Amino acid sequence: MSFCACRLSFLASVTMFQAAAKTLSASCQAVSFSIRHYCRKTPTKLRISEALSGAKLGENVKVQGWIRSVRRQKSNLFLHVNDGSSLQSLQIVAGSQLSDPLLTFGSAVEVTGVLKESPHQKQPFELEADQLHVAGECNPMDFPFKIKERHSLEYIRQFPHLRCRTNAFSSLLRIRSEATTAINSYFKENGFVQIHTPVITSNDCEGAGELFQVELLGSENEEGENFFSVPAFLTVSGQLHLEVMSGAFTRVYTFGPTFRAENSQSRRHLAEFYMVEAEVSFTQSLEDLTKVMEDLFKSATEHVLAHCAEDVDLFHKHVTPGHRDTLDVMMKRRFLVITYSEAIDILSRSSQKFAFPTNWGCDLQTEHEKYLVKHCGNIPVFVTDYPYDLKPFYARDNQDNPAHTAAAVDLLVPGVGELCGGSLREERLDLLRARLEEAGLDDTYSWYLDLRRFGSVPHGGFGLGFERYLQCILGVDNIKDVIPFPRFSNSCLL
Amino acid sequence: MSFCACRLSFLASVTMFQAAAKTLSASCQAVSFSIRHYCRKTPTKLRISEALSGAKLGENVKVQGWIRSVRRQKSNLFLHVNDGSSLQSLQIVAGSQLSDPLLTFGSAVEVTGVLKESPHQKQPFELEADQLHVAGECNPMDFPFKIKERHSLEYIRQFPHLRCRTNAFSSLLRIRSEATTAINSYFKENGFVQIHTPVITSNDCEGAGELFQVELLGSENEEGENFFSVPAFLTVSGQLHLEVMSGAFTRVYTFGPTFRAENSQSRRHLAEFYMVEAEVSFTQSLEDLTKVMEDLFKSATEHVLAHCAEDVDLFHKHVTPGHRDTLDVMMKRRFLVITYSEAIDILSRSSQKFAFPTNWGCDLQTEHEKYLVKHCGNIPVFVTDYPYDLKPFYARDNQDNPAHTAAAVDLLVPGVGELCGGSLREERLDLLRARLEEAGLDDTYSWYLDLRRFGSVPHGGFGLGFERYLQCILGVDNIKDVIPFPRFSNSCLL
Repeated sequence: MSFCACRLSFLASVTMFQAAAKTLSASCQAVSFSIRHYCRKTPTKLRISEALSGAKLGENVKVQGWIRSVRRQKSNLFLHVNDGSSLQSLQIVAGSQLSDPLLTFGSAVEVTGVLKESPHQKQPFELEADQLHVAGECNPMDFPFKIKERHSLEYIRQFPHLRCRTNAFSSLLRIRSEATTAINSYFKENGFVQIHTPVITSNDCEGAGELFQVELLGSENEEGENFFSVPAFLTVSGQLHLEVMSGAFTRVYTFGPTFRAENSQSRRHLAEFYMVEAEVSFTQSLEDLTKVMEDLFKSATEHVLAHCAEDVDLFHKHVTPGHRDTLDVMMKRRFLVITYSEAIDILSRSSQKFAFPTNWGCDLQTEHEKYLVKHCGNIPVFVTDYPYDLKPFYARDNQDNPAHTAAAVDLLVPGVGELCGGSLREERLDLLRARLEEAGLDDTYSWYLDLRRFGSVPHGGFGLGFERYLQCILGVDNIKDVIPFPRFSNSCLL
Repeated sequence: MSFCACRLSFLASVTMFQAAAKTLSASCQAVSFSIRHYCRKTPTKLRISEALSGAKLGENVKVQGWIRSVRRQKSNLFLHVNDGSSLQSLQIVAGSQLSDPLLTFGSAVEVTGVLKESPHQKQPFELEADQLHVAGECNPMDFPFKIKERHSLEYIRQFPHLRCRTNAFSSLLRIRSEATTAINSYFKENGFVQIHTPVITSNDCEGAGELFQVELLGSENEEGENFFSVPAFLTVSGQLHLEVMSGAFTRVYTFGPTFRAENSQSRRHLAEFYMVEAEVSFTQSLEDLTKVMEDLFKSATEHVLAHCAEDVDLFHKHVTPGHRDTLDVMMKRRFLVITYSEAIDILSRSSQKFAFPTNWGCDLQTEHEKYLVKHCGNIPVFVTDYPYDLKPFYARDNQDNPAHTAAAVDLLVPGVGELCGGSLREERLDLLRARLEEAGLDDTYSWYLDLRRFGSVPHGGFGLGFERYLQCILGVDNIKDVIPFPRFSNSCLL
């Protein structure tokens, strides 16, 4: 007999039992407390966020979660229980006969009882417990987080397997999840097709070093013995693969992990980070891209502020007080646009001493980016039309000699610096071929040239660093505090 | 002066121009055709899918895309133009004076004209063109796809940079994108938090080989010179990282790339594939997991069938005729549940000769899985409670000696075999510690033991192979045909 059939007959008997219970229940309103218990329906399982909104008020419910605080009084026991569905915990009130020394900070509990309006102003509803079951103990002496202590982000970072149990990091994870939803929704609503660009690639999109190589574990790395027959790397960008798609879809995007083997432990860099990349076909100018970047930023942020208000407040109140004002200004104002040449002008005229040079042709450094954002009133600013020689082979030539520039754009934001980078792509076969030949890359990129041989269109795209985006809206200083499991030079915990 | 200010003054003059044009337009209804042209508003840019739904009927519009067919008549030219927003293309009708030899299959065009009801039954609307601009040529002799030919999936697979330009593969990509949305929506609606589990990890979740190692490009692999200080691998599963999160959130999931260095070129395996993994806290039995798996499958499939009807039909009509019936049965029927012991019973009593043994304790092979699905009426079947010794250290011990099993479950589906695998996790510290000590892994997994030391809860989860899911609903035989850029032994194109 199959398990399935078993289940069906079990369900049938449950239904019969429930019907019987209902009849009983109707006729036993005046019966004593102990009997009333038997008449009650199986308690409805509620998430804490549902209980906090007053769902099933007056009914018998069951909640499950982890204890965030314990207060013992003579006749009563007060617990706060959290299950990750919201920052706020649910207050549980129990008679002292239900008290148990195992009810400690961090332990897991299942509670059944009746959801009631709370007499206290702090919370609208609370659960009057009939039953308290400790599902998993937690020895408070060994547990690295202490009750009622506010631990710093640096401190909790030492416990990557436990930090999700703190208020700050669980808020961060809910915000990160909701921001992911927001970004996907933005693209969906605007007709973009999501493409899963590969992690393992035989390309090096940026032409830079800083690559991770992928090999079969235990392989001797002898020539010709690669798993893939060719050297394979972790992707630094999905752009070239998105460009493949922009020969058939006018709007595509990808949202996934990218990698840089930067030997840096800075607050700005990770070896593995998430990137949102979009590619738009039939573009006319950089404005077609800056519009998408600004809309994406504002639409996603509005969504996060609306759906994670409490969680965002935790950061704006306790992590970086005052950051909300900065964000509000960013949201209200139109982003600025200046050219690279204008940026160099601003930097050259500044009285500030910079460590790096600021003459035309030099790349903008973080110190320059931060100055420019401040100079522009602490709102996001697009810098466009960089020197041609600073940009990779795929950037579109503006053909504006003698000040030879490419149609590239960076978005600089307060606190973070570069948030997005993008460009129009060189869609003209002859120009692209000449540049690749010059670099000796025409063979390697013959497939890329094919995209221009067959139905090429003007197009462009950009990438947005997802962790930097989270830093920017929350005001978090260290990038390691906005990703579940940070990977960087000399660190790959878990 | 900033670019931004420029733009504003430009916008102001456009508005003035538009106002003037409106006044003109109102007074020129009887004016001749050529003048009427000047009075017309800038054409509205439409996506092909919008034009096909009759948006802006009778208005001057502009569409952009790639030519899928060309038909030249004496006085008229007929094109079909596709922009990836739908399988169907838009018919363009133009006077022969607009004909141009560069209007070929595969070339990119921009067309402006008036959207009209079509006199033909094949399509409800068509575009009467005023202007035709070839944005990018395509030499039909060199282009690997030929007009009006139906190329096989095997043939187009040779051109990973161009195959998105075929009907079949662009349909697949739209379905893949929509299925991703559907899966994310399912989890969102059911209160799951999305976690970005890491790609690079120092764990080997399955305890198996078949790992890719990650190293800095050009590093000499000398001891102690790892980029991360420890050996680092590409993840084979996000499970352990999700389990970290299930100590703070009762429902979490991840959806991203996973890796197996299987030396196989089979139709069932890829080195890089996408996995949906979920973890549920406070489980009571495997049924808490099988319910989520079945709901996820049915909810996502319903969404895809509703939102990609045309694209799915292409597969059900032209790639695997008859597959729709199989799918309809799967959707209507409740999935079956049998135990591993029952499965072994069925296999032993079968008259079919199997290549692999079928006695209790043996792992189920693809041939067994396919037989079981057929035996059960070609609907998905859960197989539960596998021999304890077959399952990894984290699977929960059923303590049902002498037939010692673990609370693990696989979901087998028609055509594909194993689609999902999951288990309850061993939440009991003493049992888990004993098993890890036995394997000599207690030091390596001390952080994992911590999860059981601090507020442990009964929990479980599963993984669903996303490509296998697509194969299952579309009836696609080869896994390489349902992923944008397949990676497998000896192949890493682009």
